[in-house]
Parts: sequence; C-alpha cells; structure tokens
Amino acid sequence: MTADRLYHVDGDLVPAAEATVSVDDRGFRYGDAAFETMRAYGGTIFDWSAHVDRLERTCATLSLDHGISADDLRGRIDETLAANDLDDAYVRLSITRGVQPGTLTPRPDVDPTVVIYVRPLPRGGTDGTPVWDEPATVRSVETRRIPDEAVPASAKTHNYLNGILARTELEAPADDGERDAVADAALMVDVDGTVAECATSNLFFVREGTLRTPSTDGPVLPGITRDIVLELAAETGTPVREGKYDLADVLEADEAFLTNRTWEIRPIATLDGVDVGGGPITGRLSRRYDERVETRCYGDGDPA
Amino acid sequence: MTADRLYHVDGDLVPAAEATVSVDDRGFRYGDAAFETMRAYGGTIFDWSAHVDRLERTCATLSLDHGISADDLRGRIDETLAANDLDDAYVRLSITRGVQPGTLTPRPDVDPTVVIYVRPLPRGGTDGTPVWDEPATVRSVETRRIPDEAVPASAKTHNYLNGILARTELEAPADDGERDAVADAALMVDVDGTVAECATSNLFFVREGTLRTPSTDGPVLPGITRDIVLELAAETGTPVREGKYDLADVLEADEAFLTNRTWEIRPIATLDGVDVGGGPITGRLSRRYDERVETRCYGDGDPA
Repeated sequence: MTADRLYHVDGDLVPAAEATVSVDDRGFRYGDAAFETMRAYGGTIFDWSAHVDRLERTCATLSLDHGISADDLRGRIDETLAANDLDDAYVRLSITRGVQPGTLTPRPDVDPTVVIYVRPLPRGGTDGTPVWDEPATVRSVETRRIPDEAVPASAKTHNYLNGILARTELEAPADDGERDAVADAALMVDVDGTVAECATSNLFFVREGTLRTPSTDGPVLPGITRDIVLELAAETGTPVREGKYDLADVLEADEAFLTNRTWEIRPIATLDGVDVGGGPITGRLSRRYDERVETRCYGDGDPA
Repeated sequence: MTADRLYHVDGDLVPAAEATVSVDDRGFRYGDAAFETMRAYGGTIFDWSAHVDRLERTCATLSLDHGISADDLRGRIDETLAANDLDDAYVRLSITRGVQPGTLTPRPDVDPTVVIYVRPLPRGGTDGTPVWDEPATVRSVETRRIPDEAVPASAKTHNYLNGILARTELEAPADDGERDAVADAALMVDVDGTVAECATSNLFFVREGTLRTPSTDGPVLPGITRDIVLELAAETGTPVREGKYDLADVLEADEAFLTNRTWEIRPIATLDGVDVGGGPITGRLSRRYDERVETRCYGDGDPA
C-alpha cells in the first residue's frame, strides 16, 4: 500500500517502508512528541496558519523548543506532496524531542525528529465527495477522557492510549466469540460524566435551533475543523452555545455531527443505537465548509 | 556513550546507534506499547516472573496479544546481556503493536515490535552500592496523576507524558531566567488531591511505627519493588497500611522513601523543602532488600 510512497524524515525524503526513528527517540520511548493532522486540497494545506498556531501551543505545553520555523516545516510538507505527486492528501506532521541521554526529564537542548507522513485522500470542496461512506454510528464508552490537570487536552501528542482504549471498547468480543460490529466513533465523557469528545473528533449537536458543542473548558481538543464550524455558524446566523452537556442532552438532539480534518463534517446516524441524524443546520454548515475549501484551496481567491 | 552497545530489535542484535523502528509503528505514532524496566544482578534478571506477570497485565489492558512466550523474551534478554558482556545492568523490554494499516483502532492481528535496551548499572546486593548518590529531594507538583478510568495506572506503557509534565515542573525557570536546581522526584496527587506516586517511583512513609503507602485502588503503579518492600515488611513484623493520604500526612512522616527497580529503596531527604529522611525502618528494609538480591542473584541458592 505504501510501497512507492515517500515520507520526509529529518530533512530527507525516504521510502515509507524504510522510514525509521531511533528506538531511543523520546517519541518512541515516551510518546514525547507533538503532531498535527492536515489535509491538502489541490496541493494547498487547508488552514496552515491554524495548524502552526496549535503546534506551537502543543510544543509550549511540552516545553519542546524544536527551533524549526513554520516556513521550514511547510517547505518540507510541500516537498513531500510534490515528491509523491499528491494534490489531495492526508498529511501528518510529527515533531519529537529526539534522542536525549539519561532519563525521563527532558533536556532543554533538543535535536528534534521531524516526520511528515502523506497518503492520498479524495478531492474536497463542492466538487468532492466525503471520505466517509455513511453517517457515523457512535457509541459512548466507559473510558473517561484524561483531565486537563493530568495532560491538557489542548496538546495534540503521541500519547494516544486514552483514545485507543476508548476505541478498543467498540471491539469487545460478542458472546459468540466473534467481534461486534465496530461503531465509527467512541464518545467519551470526562471524570464528572460531562460529554467531552470522540477519540478523534469533536462533537456538535442541535437542540431548539441552537448549535451546541462541549466547551474547551473541559478536556476537549480545540479542533481546527471545530473552530471553522463555529465561524461558519456565526456567518450564517446560527445560534451557538459552547457548554457542559451530558449524554441525555445529545440523545435528545434534533441533529448531531462530528468534525475532524479527515471527515470534515460527518452527521451522526445513531448514538448508542438511538437515531439522531443530520438535518438542515448540519447540511448548511457542510455546504459552507465545502465552499470555503473550494474558495481557499481550489479557487482563484487568495489561499488562506 | 552507547557507541559499542548492542540492543535487541525484533529478533536481532543491532548496534544501539542503528536500532530503529518504523515511523508507522504504533509504538511511535501513539505510544501504543507495553514495557518493563528490570535489573540484572550477576547476570540474573531479578524477579523475572513478576515482570512477566505485569507485562501480561499491561498487554491485557491494551488488548495487545503479542504471541511471544516468556521464555522467548527471556532468551532475547539473556542474549543481549551476553552480547554486551553485562552482568549488572539496567534492562528495558518494550513490546509494541507494530505497524498496522489504517487508523487508531487496533487490529487483532499483531506483528509486534520487541526492543530490548541494556546499559551497565553497578552491582547490587549486600556488596553493592546504590546507584543514587544521596537521599532524594522531592517536590510535589501541580500535574495530577491520570485517573484509572482514563488510562489504568497499572498498565506500564509508552504513554509517559503525564510523568514528563510532572518532571518538567521541577525545571521551571527561576525568576532570574536560570533554571532551578532539579529535584530528584516529582510527587503527584490524583484529581482528588490524594497522594499517588512520583513520576517513576512509588512512595512509602512511616508514621507512628507503621509503614504506609498509597493504595493501588488509586492511580498508582503496582511497582514490583513496592511489592517486595511489602513482603519484607511482613517478614520483619513491620506494621503496614495501604491507604489514602494527603501531602500533609507525608510531610509529618518520621521516615520516607521511594522505590523503583533502578533506585531500589531511596530515602527521601526533603519533601517540598521539609526535612524527612530515612530511619530505622527504612534502613532495615534496605538491608533485607539487599540480602534478597544477594541470595537470589549472587548467592548459591535457587534464583527466583
């Protein structure tokens, strides 16, 4: 699958199958690394500046002073896309603290490891089709989202076991020993039972004509797609409320959807078996999202 | 430092400087990996069966069915120690879920990555000297230990940012822009303010003649050194209580010490600047610990 693909590792394009990091890299030993998941549409990284800002915040949380400029990082990404002849793509950028002597405590002198992964993803915008086939089936899980006081949810890092444990619950063996059908997303609540987010996406729902989403005061990643949806809601005069909700609030929703870079806006078909579905607000926001991608990445306007 | 050292990666001995894993390995992308830190004394892995048991529990938590027998793992460790001509050593064994196609959800078919790291550590037992120079200075930190409902503390995994953030607090720049002197250990409390453990060690303290340690009902790693100390306390008739404590309880302690595989039993000199120190119970347990290492690893008795 990745036979001919090239990744970008520490300044060099290398065949994906040969792309490696040291076993002493702190990214491997401890998950001590920041990352961003992006989409390239028509060769343009959508919302690049938002990714740069969030990466910087993650690195500040980790006290990871990698010393690499945003232009340098962007150059490596563009080089990787070009080398793979990709215009429409998934792009992941990881920066680790590299190899350091000694123990757990990070050293201030960092020789970072920078890895850029790419793979083809279909065209987006008004002429594209979503990467998902159907609205999402969602199940709430027992695994609680890590509190911000332990590891801030605003930091996007290689410590992803919380989400993996959540998703693993979706695959618990059924009574007959086979595996249950897998839901598309695992919805987590925080230690107080307040709805947080799915393992890899933010949650929105509509009740009484108001678009609602868990506040980032709780352990919720400030998703870039989430931010765009909030902007688009404001542009279209849709009332918005960021707040604290429990599962019952979402189960009574008129519409609900998930957001992330890859899915963009994906309606929720069911939550815990209860029909939810999209609707007029979900549809309107999806169209506006596609239009923004079209204008900024495929159109003649200035790319953002 | 590691110039001539050999690690063991996926069945082969390789120079440490060339030991790598794929950037697509889930151990790197997500910290999706189990590990154990061990000591070899006189060429023998101390408490091997306890490490096997805990590794198995970690892998069960991660639903990571690696399919490698304990004997096979032990063979690789022994081979690595022999190849490096090491009798007294630090040994780390890591098992990842390997490279898997697709996204965050783990697949049941695992081609695991197994890495064995070694480095020299001085002789232990009654004839050895501790690897630490002085009793530990400890500071309590703001970072809270991750609750078990989010990621069980009993699982020893490559998701180590919680501990890294805790330790990073010890290095906050002082007012003059320089870095503060580093404490030896960062003591974390849980989200309720109950004392849990340090970033890489378990806590014990003595009050009113009773040895006390945070219960593993809370987010506390069931350390193997911790278990041995509890056994030795029982053998020596020392009253023991596992319970829930706050920082004030520890600050009023008559004696206190930290335990992990590397340090073994290390007295606490100060906690948040308050003198604590070792004492007769700490001293007695340390001697018994050394005797056990001596008997089981260097002596003529049956190694455990």
